[in-house]
Amino acid sequence: MTLLDDLRSPADLRTMTPEQLQQLAQEVREFLIESCSVTGGHIGAGLGVVELTIALHTAFDTPRDQLVWDVGHQGYPHKVLTGRKDRMHTLRQEDGISGFLKRTESEYDTFGAGHAATSISAAFGMAAARDLNGDDFKVAAIIGDGSLGSGLAYEALNNAGASDRDFIVVLNDNEMSIAPNVGAMHKYLTSVQRNPIYNRLRSALGEWADHATGVFKDAGALVRRWEESVKAFLTPGVLFEELGFRYIGPIDGHDIPQMIETFRAVKSFKGPRLVHVITTKGKGFPAGDHGEKWHALPPGHDPATGKPLKSSTANPNYTTVFGKALAELMDEFPKVIAITAAMPGGTGTGTVEKRHPARFFDVGIAEAHGVTFAAGMATQGVRPVVAIYSTFLQRAFDSIIHDVAIQDLPVIFCMDRAGLVGEDGETHGGIYDIAYMLAVPNMTVAAPRDGTALVGLLRTAMQHDGGPFALRYPRDVAPDLVGPATGIPAVPFGTWEVLRKGEEVAILAVGTMVGESLRAAEALAAEGLPVTVVDCRFLKPYDASTLTALVASHAQLLVVEEGTVVNGFGAFMAAVVGEMDPGVRVHAHGVPDRIVYAASRTRQLRQCGLDAAGIADKVRALHESEALAG
Amino acid sequence: MTLLDDLRSPADLRTMTPEQLQQLAQEVREFLIESCSVTGGHIGAGLGVVELTIALHTAFDTPRDQLVWDVGHQGYPHKVLTGRKDRMHTLRQEDGISGFLKRTESEYDTFGAGHAATSISAAFGMAAARDLNGDDFKVAAIIGDGSLGSGLAYEALNNAGASDRDFIVVLNDNEMSIAPNVGAMHKYLTSVQRNPIYNRLRSALGEWADHATGVFKDAGALVRRWEESVKAFLTPGVLFEELGFRYIGPIDGHDIPQMIETFRAVKSFKGPRLVHVITTKGKGFPAGDHGEKWHALPPGHDPATGKPLKSSTANPNYTTVFGKALAELMDEFPKVIAITAAMPGGTGTGTVEKRHPARFFDVGIAEAHGVTFAAGMATQGVRPVVAIYSTFLQRAFDSIIHDVAIQDLPVIFCMDRAGLVGEDGETHGGIYDIAYMLAVPNMTVAAPRDGTALVGLLRTAMQHDGGPFALRYPRDVAPDLVGPATGIPAVPFGTWEVLRKGEEVAILAVGTMVGESLRAAEALAAEGLPVTVVDCRFLKPYDASTLTALVASHAQLLVVEEGTVVNGFGAFMAAVVGEMDPGVRVHAHGVPDRIVYAASRTRQLRQCGLDAAGIADKVRALHESEALAG
Repeated sequence: MTLLDDLRSPADLRTMTPEQLQQLAQEVREFLIESCSVTGGHIGAGLGVVELTIALHTAFDTPRDQLVWDVGHQGYPHKVLTGRKDRMHTLRQEDGISGFLKRTESEYDTFGAGHAATSISAAFGMAAARDLNGDDFKVAAIIGDGSLGSGLAYEALNNAGASDRDFIVVLNDNEMSIAPNVGAMHKYLTSVQRNPIYNRLRSALGEWADHATGVFKDAGALVRRWEESVKAFLTPGVLFEELGFRYIGPIDGHDIPQMIETFRAVKSFKGPRLVHVITTKGKGFPAGDHGEKWHALPPGHDPATGKPLKSSTANPNYTTVFGKALAELMDEFPKVIAITAAMPGGTGTGTVEKRHPARFFDVGIAEAHGVTFAAGMATQGVRPVVAIYSTFLQRAFDSIIHDVAIQDLPVIFCMDRAGLVGEDGETHGGIYDIAYMLAVPNMTVAAPRDGTALVGLLRTAMQHDGGPFALRYPRDVAPDLVGPATGIPAVPFGTWEVLRKGEEVAILAVGTMVGESLRAAEALAAEGLPVTVVDCRFLKPYDASTLTALVASHAQLLVVEEGTVVNGFGAFMAAVVGEMDPGVRVHAHGVPDRIVYAASRTRQLRQCGLDAAGIADKVRALHESEALAG
Repeated sequence: MTLLDDLRSPADLRTMTPEQLQQLAQEVREFLIESCSVTGGHIGAGLGVVELTIALHTAFDTPRDQLVWDVGHQGYPHKVLTGRKDRMHTLRQEDGISGFLKRTESEYDTFGAGHAATSISAAFGMAAARDLNGDDFKVAAIIGDGSLGSGLAYEALNNAGASDRDFIVVLNDNEMSIAPNVGAMHKYLTSVQRNPIYNRLRSALGEWADHATGVFKDAGALVRRWEESVKAFLTPGVLFEELGFRYIGPIDGHDIPQMIETFRAVKSFKGPRLVHVITTKGKGFPAGDHGEKWHALPPGHDPATGKPLKSSTANPNYTTVFGKALAELMDEFPKVIAITAAMPGGTGTGTVEKRHPARFFDVGIAEAHGVTFAAGMATQGVRPVVAIYSTFLQRAFDSIIHDVAIQDLPVIFCMDRAGLVGEDGETHGGIYDIAYMLAVPNMTVAAPRDGTALVGLLRTAMQHDGGPFALRYPRDVAPDLVGPATGIPAVPFGTWEVLRKGEEVAILAVGTMVGESLRAAEALAAEGLPVTVVDCRFLKPYDASTLTALVASHAQLLVVEEGTVVNGFGAFMAAVVGEMDPGVRVHAHGVPDRIVYAASRTRQLRQCGLDAAGIADKVRALHESEALAG
């Protein structure tokens, strides 16, 4: 029986000895490495905060005191310590526990987390509400150093720092967000840790102020008089002090007793304060690599090496296809550059970093800046490719409208993880981009049905003489093997492709749904129900002549898309066709208007009826209703 | 003949004497006060930067060097000096010159501006592109201190500061954004200006380092050795220095020769640098008030006092109705609080600041933080009302989805300036909110047809036992006089109201379009074409039973909304009705899928056919097509 097995709740931590807490940390770490080797997951961040999590739950009176974690990747040890150890084998699975923080999962999960940099804002809101309600519990936001590059974190610091609320921020600084950090804030934090000038100067000045005589006596008196200002000036956390926070640190994030002592002391301080904790991401992971590679691990990997136990499929995933093609096409298109927001690996743009380093820009976790920065570049004849996940690009919606679209600038948006994203669940679902991009004037919106089409559309976008161009593709393996980009022609702008001709029902399929629709059509044909299948690779502008022909020859159009059914392409087509022909009915078939929780992507698609079987069922139902009506 | 009359281009400035430049500043100021007294406009910011603008165009080789203005309100003197003086009388008018910066208007307008805090991102993009292109012109972003509270500005500073690019930021610090500034950055800037410790300590330390002897000799050597660090540490702009910028200032923003000298010197420096300029907003305006009140002035005001020459209409505008009702309803609903993003006046929430100061939160120009902060508050049983213009709320789209909707938290969004916004033009158009809000799961979306309905819906939102609730209302005068909120009942949740019964065509009208549709119906009835008019005050959830009844009794539905026609309520209804009845056609009538430029709101509505005449025309056309088809 281990300490971890015996742990009933975080309250138990508060009765343990330092040695027991240390042993518990070891047990948690071993448990996580083993557990995640089966389930997969974002293990690196969690391993880095095992001791920090123990210290926080020991020093704070959780769940009365509220800990607000950021991103959620850091939350694994927190889950293990708050009664969810026995469910960790269901991590990120359907009906299992979330890979992120989730309010419905535990009273210890005070605020849902998924996207980076929300914790300070949310926690400060809790602190403000606490004060209104006349309560007196503590609120502590934990945030990683990578997230500090995000404007949202800064807005929250700026707002909180100007207040005198009882409010604590714990900066978990592992010098690593997902990829190595970029940005001035990162350089700054590194200097805080490494540059000895600060502490030495602080001692020297204090001594000097105490002993100054002769011509320096006045200066000495001045310094003493302004002691508080000077102190703020000479602490390592001057930047945070300037933003109104009392800065404490840096302290060792793997030294449990020191952290507990510090947090207990900090609890009694007043006003906004920030504790700077230094941790090592992935600490204790046997493979010993803490970089982007082990940020997340697939299910079924060797716990000793992190390598997958099963060999992967032969086809590359869309991310790989995109990254390779982008780097290759940049040989042909010298004005194209690539922008990522802290995800060279996740977006595939790491290939560009290698092949065209001067034309690669990692702006950090700063999506809105990335897009406005791209707009600025585009004014100079450069053509930026902004590669950001569909879900994260939501952060740049105003920049897309205000800085890119209104000025009709030729920025190319490559939205990976568009559609359902499987185990990452509801916070990371890329199901809104069709709705929000179609609404933007001047915007071209396109979706490839396979890897080759992705490369072709990327070429089209680079050749396109016009404004912004958005491409969406899924978190999935491409259904095809993809050759070199030089051999793949552009897809004619604004066109659709009729892939199969049938009668009565035409399926207008978007991106990933083309393959599923073809499979559905095959099954339906075998039942004597031949349907038309169209690859609507351009959502806007749509192919008006093909649409007109389809309307003239079919009674029903079924629009199938991997995106929200409310105001997706189906609704768009319903409105367009409504103006064309009263006799044709348009049915929108997409992700229903509800939150779609974590499950495998295949399962999620099944739940939504967005697979061959679901599409075929829908066509059969339409056929029957038509037959009845007829 | 004045100097201003003679000025052909900014190049002329470079040949003028300091005295002439000073005189020119006076002429520009007088011209602007006179000109804006006729046209109206955001005069305060412009009056503050007359000397700064002259100094920038003198020191920099514009248009080869690129000046990137922020927000655009600051741009009036820039327009006057760059060949647009003779068109200033068309300011903000249809086919006139824009109230903001605009690339299509002048080669001196390097980047469009409207929303705050875009200039550093855009300018840094230009600098990066310049370097790629092998050019060597200078790029300078001008930004106001209020905008520095925005995450976008911080993301850009953080990115630029980590680089070694030739890049200049000019901080125009008037201690005022629109309303008085909030936030730690503001406090910080104020301390930079006012606290004499910085300069005194800098002198003292330098002296000390040069003369240290005896026990302090080592410390002295240490300080000399780390001179650069120490210098950075002890300059007033330490915060910017920490973010990687070389800081210069603060300098007097009304002293032309000093500014020219400084800018010329700064041009020769390397790397990212920030010049801190102190200006007085509204300087020289005879009324002498520089606050939110004179941020913008209406057309036709007395240049001496800023007061309107004509008396305004008797009805209050929606903003006033909202602010008054919110403050009153907060008496009844003790858990409701109000959040604004730097616009207590613009949003009407200033009433709450007066009546319930402890329940009023101004987060500064930080919309995303405002929404996530609200979500945090909502977890504690508080019900936040987030009052942000439709166009600015685009900045918080991800916070709306990720922090509010996914967690189904009861945050109320009050979107003022929804729809066409008149003279503020394309950057401020509130025409996307229906599209982007409908796509969000768990979100209720509603729009009142008049001021009384706004109050009723606000009560409904406060009583609603559920998740997020969004209300949209226009930049317009309410069509009704509105009584005290206590006397106005809630609007039954999810219901529509049939206001007029007709045949064949039913108009489904949203918000502002209800009144126009009733007027259209009146005209049509006189022609023997009686139509039904429905107030679709709830867009989501829609009133399914009323819709079913309408579908059963009408051949055509015309959905009319003041929002983009692509993926608005019309498209939503087209998809819904498509599933219900094949015989009924749905027509979406909204703002066309193009950029709508500045003009009076009445003219914009006319252009889009979104007035009684346009709606009636549309119905007549539908009737004729139906008659032909029949």
